[in-house]
Amino acid sequence: MVVTMQDVAARAGVSVKTVSNVVNDYPYIRPATRARVEEAIAALGYQVNVAARNLRQGRTGMIGLALPELRVPYFAELADSVMRAAEAQGLVLLIEQTGSVGEHEAEVLHGPRRRFTDGLLFSPVAMDPRDHPELDVDYPLVLLGERVFDAGVDHVTMANVEGARAATSHLVERGCRHIAVIGVHPGEAMGSAALRFDGYLQAVRAAGREFNPRHAGVAQRWVRSTGAVAMAQVLDSGVPVDGVFAMNDALALGALHVLHSRGLRVPDDVAVIGFDNIDDTEYSEPPLSSIDPGREQIADQAVGLLVARIAGSTAPPRQVVADFALVERESTAPV
Amino acid sequence: MVVTMQDVAARAGVSVKTVSNVVNDYPYIRPATRARVEEAIAALGYQVNVAARNLRQGRTGMIGLALPELRVPYFAELADSVMRAAEAQGLVLLIEQTGSVGEHEAEVLHGPRRRFTDGLLFSPVAMDPRDHPELDVDYPLVLLGERVFDAGVDHVTMANVEGARAATSHLVERGCRHIAVIGVHPGEAMGSAALRFDGYLQAVRAAGREFNPRHAGVAQRWVRSTGAVAMAQVLDSGVPVDGVFAMNDALALGALHVLHSRGLRVPDDVAVIGFDNIDDTEYSEPPLSSIDPGREQIADQAVGLLVARIAGSTAPPRQVVADFALVERESTAPV
Repeated sequence: MVVTMQDVAARAGVSVKTVSNVVNDYPYIRPATRARVEEAIAALGYQVNVAARNLRQGRTGMIGLALPELRVPYFAELADSVMRAAEAQGLVLLIEQTGSVGEHEAEVLHGPRRRFTDGLLFSPVAMDPRDHPELDVDYPLVLLGERVFDAGVDHVTMANVEGARAATSHLVERGCRHIAVIGVHPGEAMGSAALRFDGYLQAVRAAGREFNPRHAGVAQRWVRSTGAVAMAQVLDSGVPVDGVFAMNDALALGALHVLHSRGLRVPDDVAVIGFDNIDDTEYSEPPLSSIDPGREQIADQAVGLLVARIAGSTAPPRQVVADFALVERESTAPV
Repeated sequence: MVVTMQDVAARAGVSVKTVSNVVNDYPYIRPATRARVEEAIAALGYQVNVAARNLRQGRTGMIGLALPELRVPYFAELADSVMRAAEAQGLVLLIEQTGSVGEHEAEVLHGPRRRFTDGLLFSPVAMDPRDHPELDVDYPLVLLGERVFDAGVDHVTMANVEGARAATSHLVERGCRHIAVIGVHPGEAMGSAALRFDGYLQAVRAAGREFNPRHAGVAQRWVRSTGAVAMAQVLDSGVPVDGVFAMNDALALGALHVLHSRGLRVPDDVAVIGFDNIDDTEYSEPPLSSIDPGREQIADQAVGLLVARIAGSTAPPRQVVADFALVERESTAPV
């Protein structure tokens, strides 16, 4: 038999409204009353009907997470972290894939699924600054990633420039003199590729070297296959290479594959470092050094900001940058 | 201004009910009436309110997918496939993680989130046959995976025994005489581990060999780290090994790592094959042969069966086994 709020009220000798107030954690309830209601809840084994409560409050208890592609390991791991962070707040997470397509991103922002969610965590890839008006929505929204700045909404991001600079400097300190960069988006002024390239350039110049354009491996998508193609392109140009900074780990894994197939030893002949610190890095051959961009922190902060907005916060938009860490593994070990 | 069904009805000169019938694609509408309504819809730019329609029909237009762990590549790729299959049916997918914990699996089946979904695709890991009563639910349910049989509900699975036998026979045909099996669950009579072990045994015996228990590498979880430990355990037992059948690709990648670190060349000294054909297999060192279990087919069939149940199908429960394929890559190439 299902225990109702009426049963609790009867046992505690209070009104249903009072039980509701206790359950919903309203202030201004006398401690003795609260204790009596809590005793009745415990004795009867009453369980709060979350769905019904959410309906009364005009909420669904669900938040959305829109990301480019779930089968990209970084996003699968981010989804896992966000799901756990949401669960810790009693929220259900609805994951949506945009496939990095602009129309899908607009559909995520304005489509019918937004009626199911109390707020949205959105990691845009295709949008650019001209799309800011798209972000003017009537529900709580928190942006993830690098793609849109100053959009007037909360934004959680990672230290792209600093992380890329640290990765490249790590190669420099290890003695690398000819450092390739994999994942370049030529002509793009914003987004992860532009920021991480900037960090790479800063480190190369800080080491007193010139940037050689033949060291730039172009890859629009950041997956293993494109990393392999970009690495091959750099090697085929004939430029010497003794270090590789790949803009993400998937690119680095593709690059490793090409280096092996060319008979180049890692780290003996070429040291390689990636970015994201996905699970794969521990089990590649050799294990891959990487930049840990603070994924758990990103998930916790993003959910926290969204929960505050759902609760009605009107604070000015915040931009949070997660802490990064350099994780050294065999692929950059001293020879 | 939002165009309503009333506006459409007024312009078309029909009742709201008629507009609703056209929108919901009911039969028995006169072609001329349908044309008039469709003209009005186009002229006014009326958009069907999916959420409202679903509410009227007592549906949410959302289906659930409960799986063990999103950061396990096989499940991330399955989630991607199911999301696309659901989208093709106009359905939104709600992904839930159980963490392979029995209580979480029960909570998925009976928890409040089921109010959001019209049906559930459920990949149980912790449940066993005694939990069949748990599966007696009042909403459409389709099982995925190997864990529960004859539960009286639709079930989409893969050819575990046949796939494992084909993988092991492939090693035999390549000339391997000492084939280890990685991922064994001792004492377990059901589930993927028992089925794939059975396929391995069949192939070993068909080759006229005895099974050597020292060839069995135990791994409860099927991730890279446990694959590495199990591979090391087999090698440390001193038994000769010239072939490895890993019960999934993650285990195989962990095993590869240990083989490399022991100075064993793949495929020259030891040939390795996995199971699942995840994206990683193409970019491991060397690329990994694997069994493709038909993930797209599993996703399409599962969503199709669930959609039929949501539409009211009372057909007897079906069990669908997806087609598998042996994918040969360098890790089992002839030397």
